[in-house]
Amino acid sequence: MEVVEVLHMNAGNGDDSYANNSQFQEKAIVMAKKITEEAITDVYKSLSPKTVHIADLGCSSGPNTLMEAGELVKAFEKARRKMGHQSPEYAVYLNDLPGNDFNSTFRALPQHQEDFKKEMGQGFGPCFFAGVAGSFYGRLFPANSLHFVHSSISLHWLSQVPKGLEENKGNIRVAASSPPSVVKAYHEQFECDFSTFLKCRAKELVTGGRMVLYFLGRRCEDHISSYNNVLNTWEFLAKVLNNLSAEGVIDEEKVNSFNLPMYRASPNEVKKVVEKEGSFCIEYLENFMYDLENEKHIIKDIGNFVVNSFRAVFEPIVAGHFGEGIVEEIFKRQKTLILESIHDLDKVEFFNVVSMTKK
Amino acid sequence: MEVVEVLHMNAGNGDDSYANNSQFQEKAIVMAKKITEEAITDVYKSLSPKTVHIADLGCSSGPNTLMEAGELVKAFEKARRKMGHQSPEYAVYLNDLPGNDFNSTFRALPQHQEDFKKEMGQGFGPCFFAGVAGSFYGRLFPANSLHFVHSSISLHWLSQVPKGLEENKGNIRVAASSPPSVVKAYHEQFECDFSTFLKCRAKELVTGGRMVLYFLGRRCEDHISSYNNVLNTWEFLAKVLNNLSAEGVIDEEKVNSFNLPMYRASPNEVKKVVEKEGSFCIEYLENFMYDLENEKHIIKDIGNFVVNSFRAVFEPIVAGHFGEGIVEEIFKRQKTLILESIHDLDKVEFFNVVSMTKK
Repeated sequence: MEVVEVLHMNAGNGDDSYANNSQFQEKAIVMAKKITEEAITDVYKSLSPKTVHIADLGCSSGPNTLMEAGELVKAFEKARRKMGHQSPEYAVYLNDLPGNDFNSTFRALPQHQEDFKKEMGQGFGPCFFAGVAGSFYGRLFPANSLHFVHSSISLHWLSQVPKGLEENKGNIRVAASSPPSVVKAYHEQFECDFSTFLKCRAKELVTGGRMVLYFLGRRCEDHISSYNNVLNTWEFLAKVLNNLSAEGVIDEEKVNSFNLPMYRASPNEVKKVVEKEGSFCIEYLENFMYDLENEKHIIKDIGNFVVNSFRAVFEPIVAGHFGEGIVEEIFKRQKTLILESIHDLDKVEFFNVVSMTKK
Repeated sequence: MEVVEVLHMNAGNGDDSYANNSQFQEKAIVMAKKITEEAITDVYKSLSPKTVHIADLGCSSGPNTLMEAGELVKAFEKARRKMGHQSPEYAVYLNDLPGNDFNSTFRALPQHQEDFKKEMGQGFGPCFFAGVAGSFYGRLFPANSLHFVHSSISLHWLSQVPKGLEENKGNIRVAASSPPSVVKAYHEQFECDFSTFLKCRAKELVTGGRMVLYFLGRRCEDHISSYNNVLNTWEFLAKVLNNLSAEGVIDEEKVNSFNLPMYRASPNEVKKVVEKEGSFCIEYLENFMYDLENEKHIIKDIGNFVVNSFRAVFEPIVAGHFGEGIVEEIFKRQKTLILESIHDLDKVEFFNVVSMTKK
């Protein structure tokens, strides 16, 4: 087992490509690509199945969903070509919650399949796609049916807001002023959820099957080091909510009872749960620091990206708790705060990447 | 092989249940239920797989989609209980074209799964659902991956409008005044499509796997006997289009070039294609006559049902060809015609049901 706890990566290349949000996201994903490819090469070498069954958990929707899944298939193709094998068939399962927009992904599928077939050339596939709606904290696939499981930027979401956050007043997740009881409640929820996740996947993966997970994490055992990150914009949401409560616009009780079902695990916490659950052997565990410090010339675009991405993800949660009427005001204020402070924020983000084999 | 070419079924029971459209549809589906159950019992007895893989092709969307798929699982459960086996796991694949509304089905899934689990009792499943978007005239699933394939009221749709319909002026499918060349073009398209369908499913089903198909058909070798049926309302659409053309509202050329990709096969035509393609053995082939003659007291509701169902299916096709602007007028006129003539129409409908085993 190789555990590299902090690997510095400088994503800066001096161009202005961050003006495009999707390119910004892709750069983050590229970091995990090498590890994913290694895992896929290994699993193909050891199992060489006639049909390769792949699951992408928390796939989201739209053309990027299919592109990302296509990258996994490409890695398998590279491995089988190296071994001089004929192409296996591929079954790719795209999973997300039942509220995800699967329709838009399915509507993009015919064109994607045509293009992908052309790109892969003669003798490839066929490659089939299916949508699977449900929480990855429960079973999603039949027993012993998968060879490779992938999940990108999803596993920092918990199955629910932890119980016992009464003392987290003024915060909306683990923050500098959160008492130990709150940190403990979040940590226990993560341990429980991640263990359940592993148990479910252990049933679904064949022996020797591989899993690569890539999700928001933190650098050190304490939670403080990631409070002030550029992508860590929920602190600004907390500030806005507290201000609105002080102005009497939102009920204080409503603000106190609002917490996000989200946890940044440290690499050691990830390792501990995997070892305790016992079904998987860790092949590789890294904590990436994504460093934007040298990219100040594009910092405004990063600010806008952060604001827009945050809103896309959190708007339904905020609207569900505080009502549709106040949503616009909340995000308008949050945007102002973020763009005002963007130059003072740490321009780093931490991700865990873990690659495992099903025992 | 048992081939019962015409089996008379009287669906009337004197109650007023046809006031509810979905009940009307369910009655039609019930006709094929017994044959489906027999096929499922047979396939479970002979294969007893640890995970049963089921595909429902042309599943449509909404709660009925999940209910219908649930019936297939129930039939497997009945068979495994009779044999004293523990429950297998179930993987149910819901297929329709990429334009189908899979979102609504997926959103109904969590509640359905909870209810279904309760209904099935302890020791059942688990049962997983996945959505598969694509035409069933192409491959949809990996090789040797399915045990049972089901398709209800979908296979009368062709993959495309046949070529060579230039002489079908004034008609929009095979009609009384269609010349032999048009009948031939439609028949050849059916033969080609159905043969392709069988080839694809033959690859996907395991040896000994079963398939039950239920779709609109016709009673005799000639096409005339089903021209005047109560569900055969496209003749009224043709009349409306011809009238609008005569009035100069729609271009005559537009009307002449409009034909539906739809064919009512006779049981013998079905049998011939299956035998020629060669991968399947027919266990049962029936042509059901669904007789509404004794249900005149509810005929107005049938009229409304026919009008609404027809519009739901054909509106996108009509709008695509003639433009959104004229759609409302076309269906308004068609509705008037149908409701005026409903008492003179034959109150029968013909369906083929074919049950096959993969050799």
